[in-house]
Parts: sequence; C-alpha cells; structure tokens
Amino acid sequence: MRIALDAMGGDFAPLEVVKGALDALREFDLEVVLVGQEERIRKFLPHGDIRGLYVQDAREVIEMGDSPAMAVRAKKDSSLVVGMGLVKQGDCQAFLSAGNTGAVMASALFVLGRIRRVERPAIGGVFPTLQGRSMVIDMGANVDCRPVHLVQFAHMGSVYMEKVFGMPNPRVGLLSNGEEKSKGNQVTVQTHGLLESSGLNFIGNIEGKDILRGVADVVVTDGFVGNIVVKLGEGLSETLFRLMRQVMTSKPHFGIAAMVLEPAFQQVARYLDYTEHGGAPLLGVNGVVIITHGRCNAKAVKNALGLARNAVEQDIVGAIASGLGSPTDSQSPERDAVPG
Amino acid sequence: MRIALDAMGGDFAPLEVVKGALDALREFDLEVVLVGQEERIRKFLPHGDIRGLYVQDAREVIEMGDSPAMAVRAKKDSSLVVGMGLVKQGDCQAFLSAGNTGAVMASALFVLGRIRRVERPAIGGVFPTLQGRSMVIDMGANVDCRPVHLVQFAHMGSVYMEKVFGMPNPRVGLLSNGEEKSKGNQVTVQTHGLLESSGLNFIGNIEGKDILRGVADVVVTDGFVGNIVVKLGEGLSETLFRLMRQVMTSKPHFGIAAMVLEPAFQQVARYLDYTEHGGAPLLGVNGVVIITHGRCNAKAVKNALGLARNAVEQDIVGAIASGLGSPTDSQSPERDAVPG
Repeated sequence: MRIALDAMGGDFAPLEVVKGALDALREFDLEVVLVGQEERIRKFLPHGDIRGLYVQDAREVIEMGDSPAMAVRAKKDSSLVVGMGLVKQGDCQAFLSAGNTGAVMASALFVLGRIRRVERPAIGGVFPTLQGRSMVIDMGANVDCRPVHLVQFAHMGSVYMEKVFGMPNPRVGLLSNGEEKSKGNQVTVQTHGLLESSGLNFIGNIEGKDILRGVADVVVTDGFVGNIVVKLGEGLSETLFRLMRQVMTSKPHFGIAAMVLEPAFQQVARYLDYTEHGGAPLLGVNGVVIITHGRCNAKAVKNALGLARNAVEQDIVGAIASGLGSPTDSQSPERDAVPG
Repeated sequence: MRIALDAMGGDFAPLEVVKGALDALREFDLEVVLVGQEERIRKFLPHGDIRGLYVQDAREVIEMGDSPAMAVRAKKDSSLVVGMGLVKQGDCQAFLSAGNTGAVMASALFVLGRIRRVERPAIGGVFPTLQGRSMVIDMGANVDCRPVHLVQFAHMGSVYMEKVFGMPNPRVGLLSNGEEKSKGNQVTVQTHGLLESSGLNFIGNIEGKDILRGVADVVVTDGFVGNIVVKLGEGLSETLFRLMRQVMTSKPHFGIAAMVLEPAFQQVARYLDYTEHGGAPLLGVNGVVIITHGRCNAKAVKNALGLARNAVEQDIVGAIASGLGSPTDSQSPERDAVPG
C-alpha cells in the first residue's frame, strides 16, 4: 500500500512531516510518497535511497489564506492537487494533509469527487472520552445542513468507527440542547425522526456534557456547531492547564509537590493529546483522505499514516457507498461543485 | 428593595434556598420574600420574625418534567406564577428561581411580558474567563433565531455587563467557525453585517477557543449553540478533574503531593465554580428575573440575590428598553405567546 503525504501542509512542514513519514515506514507495512517542493523535502531526508519512500515534486503551495476553490483551480501543480491526483490515478491509496482544510476539501471534491449518493462530504474529528474515543461529525466542512445531510454524516461516521477502530455497532448520538426528542432546533428535531428509522444504532439526543463522557461513539452535528465544539474543547483544556500552572507556581511548597506530580500531569495531558488520535478523515469523497491538525508534529503524522492504512485496508470508501444503499461506483468529479 | 425568591426551585430546595436568603439578608441591604409551600419553607426557618424576610404561600409546584406553557397556565398558584405576580404588582423588584428554565421563561412572558421592541427574551450565562468574566447569550431560550434576534441579544448582554458588572463599553463577539467575516452559517454571516452597524462595541467573529480566553465580554449565539457550549464547558471541567483524581490516586507518592496541592486545586475549582458567578439573567422581559443553576447551593443563591439587587439598582429593564431605541413602556403581557 502506498500513501501520498502532503509535505508542505502544517505549521511545521516539511520537517515534522518528513520525520513522521520516516517513523511510519519503520512501524507500519506501507510506502509513502512525499508530495511538495522536492528540494525543500530532500533537505530533511538522509542521503541515498530509503526503502518505500518516494518524492513527487509539486511546485506550487496553497497557503492558509488562499480561497480554497480558486487556489485549487489556479494551482494545479500544488501538493494538494498533485497528491489527490496520485490517489485518483491509483498510484496511491490514500492522501494525508495538514494544510488549509477548505483547500483539502475543495481539491478532494475537484479531483476525486463524491461517493455516489453522498450529498455532502464531512470531516469527522476523533476525540478522547472517558471511555475511549468518539467522533464528532461534521467538524466544519458544512455550516448549513439539512436533515438528510446529518443522517448521512451519521452513516459515514458509523462506518468509520466500526471499520477503522473496530467498534461493533457504534452508538450514534445527535447533539442537541436536551435529551428529549422534542428538544433541538428545527433541523435537529427533523433529523431525530430520520435517525430513528435509519437502521443505525441511534441512542437519541445527547447534550454538550455527554460528548466527553463517551455516551456516543458518533456525535452528529452540523459543521458550524462541530467546529465551535472542537475549538472550545481545545481552548478549555489549554485554559485549565494554564490556570493549574499559575496556581502551582504561586507558593514554593506547591512547586515541589507539582514536580512530584509532573508524570501524573503528563499522563492527563497525553490523554488529551490530539496527536494520539491521528487526524480527521474527510468522509464521503471517493478516496481515503485524512486531514491532520495544522500544528501536528512527527508523531501525529505517523499516527495518521497508521489510521489511513487501516481505512484503506477496511475499504472505507466501499463500505460508505454500500451503507448508503448504492453500488460503490463514483459520481463523476466533473459534476461536483467545488465550494467557494 | 424587595426580591421574590422561588423557594421550591432547584435540586436542594427549599433548604439551600432558605439558607441563601438568610445569608443574603446579613450581607446585602435588601428584603426577601420566599415563595412556595409555607409549611415546607418554615421548617428551615428559625422561630420568630426575621427582619426583612417574608413568606408568600403558593400551593402548587411546577416540576422539572412539566410542559412549561401548560404548567404556567394550569398552576396559577405555583411559586413561579405567584412570584412573577409579586414583581408585576410592584410588591417585589426582582424574581429569582432555580426551577425548570422553560417554566421560568414561560411564566415571565405570561405574567410580566416582554420589553417593548424585544422580539425574543434570552438567557445570558455569565462565565469565568482568564481575564475575568463574560456572558454567553442566548444560553438556551431560543433555539431557532433570526439575525435581528441575535442583534438584540448583543444589545441586552452589553447593557447587563456594563450596568451589573461595571464594564465600560463591553466588547461583543459573534460566535462562529472562523474569525473572518465570511465565516459562519447563513444566520451568522447576516448577523455580522447587522452588528457592524449596531453602534455596539462589536469586535467581530470569535471562535470556540476564544470564549474562555475572555476575548469578548458578550458572546452572541443562538440558544441551541449556547446551550451546547455551556454544557460542554461544564462536562469538560468535570472530566478533567476526574481524570486528575484518577491519575493522582494511582501511586502512593502522588497521593502525598496531591494533598499538598489540594489548596491549589481548590483555587482552580473555585475559579470555575458557577456559584461564584451568580446565575443567569432572563433579559428582555419586563422585570428583573434571574435563573440560577438547578444544583445551586446557599452560596449561589446568596450571590444571585446580590446580582439581582445590582440589576434593579441599575434599572436594567429601562436601560434595555432605551438601548433598543424605544421608551421603557412595556408590551401588554396578554399579547405574548407563551412558548410550548
């Protein structure tokens, strides 16, 4: 199996991306194609050939500030468009990037297209809970959603958690402002009805406090709420740790106790560490695409490569297509509108 | 000044409510009317008269499971309807309850009515940030909102933070999935435009991670998102503290260090403690109404009474009415639809 890896995406590219690729080659049975400006990539590679590692030159770079749709159309020789092309042509089986999320999505739609019957591809963020992990889908790809979109998110999320993380019959929860069926905005109340007859393991509405308790394996919401939830979660953890540190350095005897407890704090921090959880799949496009955090380091890249490998082995794309009650053939990419 | 206090609302009523009232009488210059089943209230009162404390009998109780609109219409002798009546008649200047949020809102609309030109009263939750405190408005009263509603929330929240907490020219942030003006769902993008020309101190879109950083004094969002955000915040703090405790009891030498650090942990916990922040005002109704947390204890009740006193002294109702560009006269309560 060969995975295309965007060497230009993320705050610490290409160094951390290259390191992550080298680590993954040691740990997993796969090949990696680093896509991007070759001379910048080679600077971080040891001399001589590395078994299973390739470099695919791509001259253009899509920046964080670029308009996704325009950049994808204008920069055909960018790492994103070239990397997606490798998947489209069958040279690679998956593509990974820590770049501009909108541009990754636009290039995936443009080059790979959607799986037949998927109306809106969505980003599924995998997060730690008290019981293990769960996925929040959509994490930001679609800000205005209709009920049918949310039901498809539920399907795609269930397939991913079952196949990639081996969870049998994942519990699907609908994020709302109360547990009762009647609670929610209009879209949520309508979605509730559809999920009840979806054949999924739908456990009903869940509230904000339930996400981290691990009540559901798949938390369904639109990309507007999903984005706010994910960023609030990040911000709250950071704030709490900062507060702890402030208080603990306020008295000398606190400092000594804090030193003793340092491994305990690190254990909690590790638990919350997004790098352990390996990136967010873009589900619904006709290929395995994983988006990693912009601040991702070598470890996050390596873990995401491992996940991408699982997703390919488990034929996520085929499973989503059959889960939506249709053959696995794809829609023509040309028919897809690329969002602005 | 006299404040009506729902003695039957909340998980620890009437005991904690009565204790909170007694504490408030000692600390603040005010009078309190405890509203509810008199014999149950008197059980927790010392014998003899207490200066400034009154009991108003109300036989019926609205339960957490009751349908708000029906309960308010059917239970005219409930603590909620009777308490609101005391404000309406001018016997009291504010009403406080830890009861069923929907029923508090329904009874406020039914008995007090809305301030003229306020389309949707909203609940403003006040929360700790790294810089002090800020308000998330709406916290759950209105799940489907139009841009004009969100702009009114911004007005009402600004007035409250300025008057009650003495913040000059509060910074208003619009919760969205990105800082750029173009980011957000349809309602958010339209609201952004309206807020720019609102005359408020609008700082633009803010993201989930910004809430706790205290970037804005007033965080504007609809009640669906607001409710999810607030409950996620509660859940995340609980989860982190539980994790810390688990890890710290895992090794004996951790236990000793944790004992030394206990005051530090308590300081952080106190910082996050909702009881310090004193309840959420229901803004836009024609009277001062404060909703406290269902799990609130005597301290939370006392602090909320102190806030209610500020809100009355600062004439919040009049300030909101003039902020919306109209005289302070009220709409007839009979013209208000009570939500189901």
